[in-house]
Amino acid sequence: MDVGFIGLGSMGKAIATNLIRAGHQLRVWNRSAAAAQELVALGARLASEPYEAASAPVLMTMLADDEAHRAVLIGQRVLERAARGLIHVNLATVSVGFARELTLLEQQHGIAYVAAPVFGRPEVAAAAKLNVVVAGAATAIARIEPLLSAIGQRTWRMGEAPERANVVKLAGNFMIASALETMGEAAALVRAHGIGAGEFLEVLTSSLFASPVYQIYGRLIAEERYQPAGFKLALGLKDVRLVLQAAETEHVPLPFASVLRDHFLEALAAGKGDLDWSALAEVSARHAELKRSR
Amino acid sequence: MDVGFIGLGSMGKAIATNLIRAGHQLRVWNRSAAAAQELVALGARLASEPYEAASAPVLMTMLADDEAHRAVLIGQRVLERAARGLIHVNLATVSVGFARELTLLEQQHGIAYVAAPVFGRPEVAAAAKLNVVVAGAATAIARIEPLLSAIGQRTWRMGEAPERANVVKLAGNFMIASALETMGEAAALVRAHGIGAGEFLEVLTSSLFASPVYQIYGRLIAEERYQPAGFKLALGLKDVRLVLQAAETEHVPLPFASVLRDHFLEALAAGKGDLDWSALAEVSARHAELKRSR
Amino acid sequence: MDVGFIGLGSMGKAIATNLIRAGHQLRVWNRSAAAAQELVALGARLASEPYEAASAPVLMTMLADDEAHRAVLIGQRVLERAARGLIHVNLATVSVGFARELTLLEQQHGIAYVAAPVFGRPEVAAAAKLNVVVAGAATAIARIEPLLSAIGQRTWRMGEAPERANVVKLAGNFMIASALETMGEAAALVRAHGIGAGEFLEVLTSSLFASPVYQIYGRLIAEERYQPAGFKLALGLKDVRLVLQAAETEHVPLPFASVLRDHFLEALAAGKGDLDWSALAEVSARHAELKRSR
Amino acid sequence: MDVGFIGLGSMGKAIATNLIRAGHQLRVWNRSAAAAQELVALGARLASEPYEAASAPVLMTMLADDEAHRAVLIGQRVLERAARGLIHVNLATVSVGFARELTLLEQQHGIAYVAAPVFGRPEVAAAAKLNVVVAGAATAIARIEPLLSAIGQRTWRMGEAPERANVVKLAGNFMIASALETMGEAAALVRAHGIGAGEFLEVLTSSLFASPVYQIYGRLIAEERYQPAGFKLALGLKDVRLVLQAAETEHVPLPFASVLRDHFLEALAAGKGDLDWSALAEVSARHAELKRSR
Repeated sequence: MDVGFIGLGSMGKAIATNLIRAGHQLRVWNRSAAAAQELVALGARLASEPYEAASAPVLMTMLADDEAHRAVLIGQRVLERAARGLIHVNLATVSVGFARELTLLEQQHGIAYVAAPVFGRPEVAAAAKLNVVVAGAATAIARIEPLLSAIGQRTWRMGEAPERANVVKLAGNFMIASALETMGEAAALVRAHGIGAGEFLEVLTSSLFASPVYQIYGRLIAEERYQPAGFKLALGLKDVRLVLQAAETEHVPLPFASVLRDHFLEALAAGKGDLDWSALAEVSARHAELKRSR
Repeated sequence: MDVGFIGLGSMGKAIATNLIRAGHQLRVWNRSAAAAQELVALGARLASEPYEAASAPVLMTMLADDEAHRAVLIGQRVLERAARGLIHVNLATVSVGFARELTLLEQQHGIAYVAAPVFGRPEVAAAAKLNVVVAGAATAIARIEPLLSAIGQRTWRMGEAPERANVVKLAGNFMIASALETMGEAAALVRAHGIGAGEFLEVLTSSLFASPVYQIYGRLIAEERYQPAGFKLALGLKDVRLVLQAAETEHVPLPFASVLRDHFLEALAAGKGDLDWSALAEVSARHAELKRSR
Repeated sequence: MDVGFIGLGSMGKAIATNLIRAGHQLRVWNRSAAAAQELVALGARLASEPYEAASAPVLMTMLADDEAHRAVLIGQRVLERAARGLIHVNLATVSVGFARELTLLEQQHGIAYVAAPVFGRPEVAAAAKLNVVVAGAATAIARIEPLLSAIGQRTWRMGEAPERANVVKLAGNFMIASALETMGEAAALVRAHGIGAGEFLEVLTSSLFASPVYQIYGRLIAEERYQPAGFKLALGLKDVRLVLQAAETEHVPLPFASVLRDHFLEALAAGKGDLDWSALAEVSARHAELKRSR
Repeated sequence: MDVGFIGLGSMGKAIATNLIRAGHQLRVWNRSAAAAQELVALGARLASEPYEAASAPVLMTMLADDEAHRAVLIGQRVLERAARGLIHVNLATVSVGFARELTLLEQQHGIAYVAAPVFGRPEVAAAAKLNVVVAGAATAIARIEPLLSAIGQRTWRMGEAPERANVVKLAGNFMIASALETMGEAAALVRAHGIGAGEFLEVLTSSLFASPVYQIYGRLIAEERYQPAGFKLALGLKDVRLVLQAAETEHVPLPFASVLRDHFLEALAAGKGDLDWSALAEVSARHAELKRSR
C-alpha cells in the first residue's frame, strides 16, 4: 500500500521501518532530514514538503504533541492540500480536545481521521509488538488493517469516535505512570529498612505483578538506570497534563494523577527531564534522603 | 510433621487444609470452635486451649492483626507455656514494630520466630498457590521448608531478621492497593468519556498489565462485584496504616499511601468496610458522580 | 478623569460606581446592556461598541477570564482602534501567560498595560475597600493613582512587569482557597467528634486566625450558607487552574493546589458550581458522611 | 491557690512563672532538675518526687506527649498517690484517645480531669496571652478559673467532656500547620517568578490574612529564620499524627493533613527536626529547586 509517513523520531522510525519490511511503499517526511535519509536507504521515497506525504491514500503521523501536529498539518497546509478520500492515521498521543478538533476539521477536507495511538517503547516498536488502540470510521479502519498488523502484535478497536482511542491511550499512560510512582515509593520504603529495591521488586514482579510494565520498569528502577531514555520524563509530564485535562472537562478528580504531576515537576526542576520517565522513582528516594546505590 | 495451628479464618482454614492433605498432623485452635470442627473432620486434633497447639515442634498462626496475636500469644500465655525449641511461624500481616517485639520476646522463651507472611486471596490459598515471603533463622526455615512448600507455589527468602519479611509484605500490599486505586481512577476517567470500564481494562490487563493483580481485581472493578469479599476493605485500611507506620519510623513520605488512606477512610465512612477492598474504586466513581452501571 | 470601563458584573459595577462617585467621567460598555444602564442612571455615558470605551485616556477592564478579554480586546478590535498613549488597566484575574502576551501586544499598539488585580468580594468593592495589586510602567501607574485610590483602601506596587501583579494575585487566591479547604477539613474533624463547626471556628477566628478571610468565610462555612455566591465555585476552579499553570511553567510542585483542584472538580461534578466557593467545605463533609446541620 | 506543677519545658516554665507572679503557691517537679531550680528561685517549692506535686488541690501538667504523661502519672504513681478530690489540669496537647483514657482512670482515683490545652508560643505564654481551651466538670473549671486567667488572655469553654478541648486543640494545630504549608507553597510560586517571599507575604498578611498566625510565621518564612525554634518541627509531626489519629477513628479523610505528614517526614529525613516548624516551607522551596535567599 502507498503510505505517507510524517514524524521519524525513535518511535516513528521503528514503525516506518516495519511498514517497509512488510512490503508497503513509503513516502516520508521529517523536520530534520537526517532521520528521513535512513528510511530512504531502506527504500522509502523522500517527500520534500510534508504535504507531498499526503498524496498517498493513507497518511500516518507520529509527532511529539498537539503543537507539532498543528504546525505541520495546519501550519504547513497538509490538510488543505490533501486529496479527498485520504485516511489520516494518527499514531501519536494527543489531547482528547485536539482529537475532536482534528476529526471535524479533516471531515471538512474530506479526510477520514483515524486515531491509532500505540502502547510500547521504541524496542517494542522495532519488534513490531506494539499494542495499537484504534478508533474511527469502520471502513477506514478496515482498509488500514494490514498496516496496523504490520506494526503491532494486536489491535484494539474502540469504536467510531476517534477520541475514544485517545482517552484509552491517556488512561493507559496514567496507569503506567502510577505504576512507576508506586514502585518508586515502595522501593524507598524497603530501602529505608535495609532491603534492596531489586531484591524486593524481584519478588513482586515475578508473582502478583508479573507483567511487562512492572518487569521492564522494575528493573530500570532497581538498577537506577535511567539513560538512555526510552520515553523522556518531560514527555511523561506532558501526558499527565493531557490526562488531567481530559479529566477536568468531565469533572473527574484524579488524586493519583495530581501526585504524579507534582513529582514530575519536581524531577524537571531537578534537571531530570531528559532521563527515562522511570526516574520518577528518584523523587521518592530523594524525599527519604536515600542516596543512589552506586 | 506435628504442627500446631491457631487462627482458622478463610485464609487459615485453606492453609491448614493443605497441610493435612500433605500428610502433616495438625493440632488446631480457633476462637470460635465451629471453624476448628471442620478441620477436625479432615483429621486434625482439637486443642482445647491455644497453648496446647504450641506443644508441637512447630506452631503456625494466622490471626487478624497485632492485637489478636497479642491477645492469644501473650494474653492466653501461649509463649509462656511453649516448649523450648518451638518454631513459631507467623503467616499473618503484622506491623514491623510488633515483629521486632515478638522476635525478642520469643527469643527469651527459647522460641525461634519465623515471619512468613503470604500473598494470595483465599482461593489462591486453597489451591496451595500462595507466594510465601519468609525471614528468620536459617536453621528454623530449613526445618519448616516442607510446610511452606505444601501451602505455596513459591517461597521467597528475605534473610535472618524476621521483620524483613513483614516489610516486604507490607510494601507488596501497598503496591496492590495502589493498583486498585489506579484502576479505580482510570475507570472513572474512561467512564466519564462514555467508555466502559471493562472495555478499557480488557485492553490494558491483556497487554502491558497482564498480571494476576490487575486481571483479578480489574474484573471485579469492571463488574462492580465487591461481594463476597476476598479481603475486606476494613482490613485494607489496617494494612495501609501499617505501611504508613513502617514508613514513618524511617522518615519515608509516601503520598500514594496517603491518598489510599484517605480513600479507604471515605469508603468506611460510606459503610463499605465489609466489601472487598477493590470497592476502593467506588470512591473515585462517586467523586465524579458516576452511578453504578447496573 | 475620563475613563472607559468594560465589564460590569457584580465586581465591575461596584468599582465603576465608586469611580463615578469620586467625580470621574465614565464611558461604559457591557455585553448585556442592562448592567450598563444602571451606570448610565448614575451619570455614565454608554459606549455602543467596546472600542468607544477606549477613546478615553484610560481604559479599565473587569472581565471574567482570559477568553473574555481576548474576545473583546482582540476579537472586537478594541486594541486596534485605541488611541496611542492609552493606559489599559486590567482589574481582572488573568493568567500570567496572557498578561505577558497582552503586555507585548499592547506595546505594539502604543498602549501602556497596567495589571491591577484586586482582592475583595463585591461588598468590599462596593465599600471601596479593595486591596489593589498593581504592576506596570511607573509613569502610567502615577497617572491612574487617583482612580486606584477611589476604588480601594490600599494599593500595593509590585514593580514594572505587569505579570508580577498577576502572580501575586494568583498566589493570594491560592492562599484563600487553601484557607477554605483547611476550614472545611477542620470543621469535618470537629463535627465528627460532636463539636459544632461554628463553636470551633469562633475560637480560632477570634484569636490566632482573626483576619478577614477566616472570619468572613468561617461564618459562611459554620452556617453552611453558600448562596448567594460572592465568588462562584466554578470561578474558584478557574483560578486554581491558573495557579497550577503559573507553577507548571516554573516547575513548582504545589500539592495543596492539587488537592484544591480535585475538590473543586468534585464539587462541580456534584452540581455546586454556582454556589459560593466556600462550599468547598461540603466536599470534606461529604467524604466523612456528615449531613448538613439544618 | 496551692498548685502542683509538673513539666517545666519552655512553655511550662513561662506558665508556672506567671502563676507565681499572680500570687499562687507552686510546688514544681521536672525531670531535669535545673529547670525546676529557676522556679524555686522565684519562690516555688521543689517536689522531690512527682507525686508530691499532687498533694496540692490542683495539679497542672505540661509534658511533651502521651508517653511522657503516662510515664509520670502512671509509671511514677502520681495518680495512685494523689489525694481524692484533686483537680488535674492538663495543659498539654495529647491524643483524643489518651484524654478519654485519663478521664476514666482519674475518675476511679477520685480525681477530676480537666483538659486545658493552650494556643501560643513560648513568648506568648511568657506574656500571659495564651488562648486556653478548656473542657471538664463545670465545678472543677470554676475553681481553676483564677489560674487560667493568670496564664492566658482568654479561656474558651468547650463543655464537660475533657477530650472535646483536645479535639479543638488538635484541629487548631492542623489549621496552623496548613497555614505554614500554604505560605511555603505560595512563597515558592512567587519566588520562582522572581518575586520576594517577603514582598508577597507583606501584601497578604497586612490585608486579608492580617492575623497572628500569618504575620508571625509569615515573617519567619520570609526571612528563612527557623532558629531558635518556638515549636520544633519534630513536635509538629507528632501533632499531625494525633490529628490523623483523631480523624481516623471517626472515618474523616483529611487530604491536607496527609500532605502535611508527608512534608514533615521529608523535613525530618533532611535533618530539620530541631528547627521551628515553619521550616516546613523549606520543603516546598526544595521541591522547586529554589536556593536559600541568603
